[in-house]
Amino acid sequence: MAKKTIIVFSGEYDRLMAAFIIANGAAAMDDDVTMFFTFWGLSALRRTTPSGPPSKQKSGLQTAFSAMLPKSTEKAGLSKFNFGGAGRFMMKKVMKAENVMTVAELLATAREQGIKLIACTMSMDVLGISKEELIDDIEYAGVATYLGEADEANVNLFI
Amino acid sequence: MAKKTIIVFSGEYDRLMAAFIIANGAAAMDDDVTMFFTFWGLSALRRTTPSGPPSKQKSGLQTAFSAMLPKSTEKAGLSKFNFGGAGRFMMKKVMKAENVMTVAELLATAREQGIKLIACTMSMDVLGISKEELIDDIEYAGVATYLGEADEANVNLFI
Amino acid sequence: MAKKTIIVFSGEYDRLMAAFIIANGAAAMDDDVTMFFTFWGLSALRRTTPSGPPSKQKSGLQTAFSAMLPKSTEKAGLSKFNFGGAGRFMMKKVMKAENVMTVAELLATAREQGIKLIACTMSMDVLGISKEELIDDIEYAGVATYLGEADEANVNLFI
Repeated sequence: MAKKTIIVFSGEYDRLMAAFIIANGAAAMDDDVTMFFTFWGLSALRRTTPSGPPSKQKSGLQTAFSAMLPKSTEKAGLSKFNFGGAGRFMMKKVMKAENVMTVAELLATAREQGIKLIACTMSMDVLGISKEELIDDIEYAGVATYLGEADEANVNLFI
Repeated sequence: MAKKTIIVFSGEYDRLMAAFIIANGAAAMDDDVTMFFTFWGLSALRRTTPSGPPSKQKSGLQTAFSAMLPKSTEKAGLSKFNFGGAGRFMMKKVMKAENVMTVAELLATAREQGIKLIACTMSMDVLGISKEELIDDIEYAGVATYLGEADEANVNLFI
Repeated sequence: MAKKTIIVFSGEYDRLMAAFIIANGAAAMDDDVTMFFTFWGLSALRRTTPSGPPSKQKSGLQTAFSAMLPKSTEKAGLSKFNFGGAGRFMMKKVMKAENVMTVAELLATAREQGIKLIACTMSMDVLGISKEELIDDIEYAGVATYLGEADEANVNLFI
């Protein structure tokens, strides 16, 4: 049993798929896995409806920024050939036919397998995302925590 | 002698160059190198003309997706400043003047040096790419194989 | 004390932030850190005004390419939601309010902390960037040097 860490910087559907497939694969092989969600990757941890009013007042700019992020990973675009969502729609159709899991399903599996999901607090500040907008049972931390985890891991990826 | 793995997720010309230059550099230093091509990175392994009819019938959506992928790495765009191919054209001109290898030449060198090239089978399903469309003498595998290789390596990159 | 390496391939403001925050965090924890700037990442090392005439004559294509690169990291766009610079402007406003350092400040900190900054000479040739256009006190090297550093490190990222 070894440890793996993945920094999830990107919020695109295909990159989130890659991140979760690697993470779930490692967890299935009994690895200890930590995913550190930062910048656009934070959108993977968004909940559909906030759990309550934001604990911190957003500035106008933060409101604008967080409004641009997809409300759900299932609405995230592809990094290529997205065509205003048509590419993602097509890819998801094929995935269903080929029995490939969606990002929402991959996230659920990651949680079932006990993968540690960490939201980067500095990115939350910059993008104006409050804890109430993110799913439950995740951790909140900064770069020092990530580095501590990475020091113990034998595979560390930035996606 | 150590081992290196590179996940080649991106299909852009500049990112493919970076991936192959690192891989070839490591192989030249007697490292054991594995490149795992997934999603758009699979386009680096496409052959100009298929070796035969596809072994698996493509759905309409898979046909559309695979039609969007560049037919050859030498037609892949840059991740920045591509301008409909003008950026790549310019970069290749300068590369020639500076004696920098093209991606096609880098791939040939990778094969000569015995770098292990693996095509991700799940991505092939999602993007509708059949074995007949990819070059010979590569391996086909999934995330478990990648993780096994990465566990033995001291440098693992995601490009 | 361990060693970390980061290949900085991307020149976007948000990715440069991520690279420097990880690097500075590791250096603050007494790690030995090497950042290898290649392709678009080289723009992070540009000086505002050249230190002198270029030591090497640029071809027309090289001039065109280097003219497209941002003259300063503070002018680099975001990888998402840039909107012709409006996204970066907004993000920098929020960063100031939240006391998050700009890329220019992060670079200054990296230098103070003794992080080794290496410019990739092959990329400089391809993009037509001369030493006179880059900041002082950096090193110039190629992929073999990077691989030597990575072999000694326990965390190696490609950003």
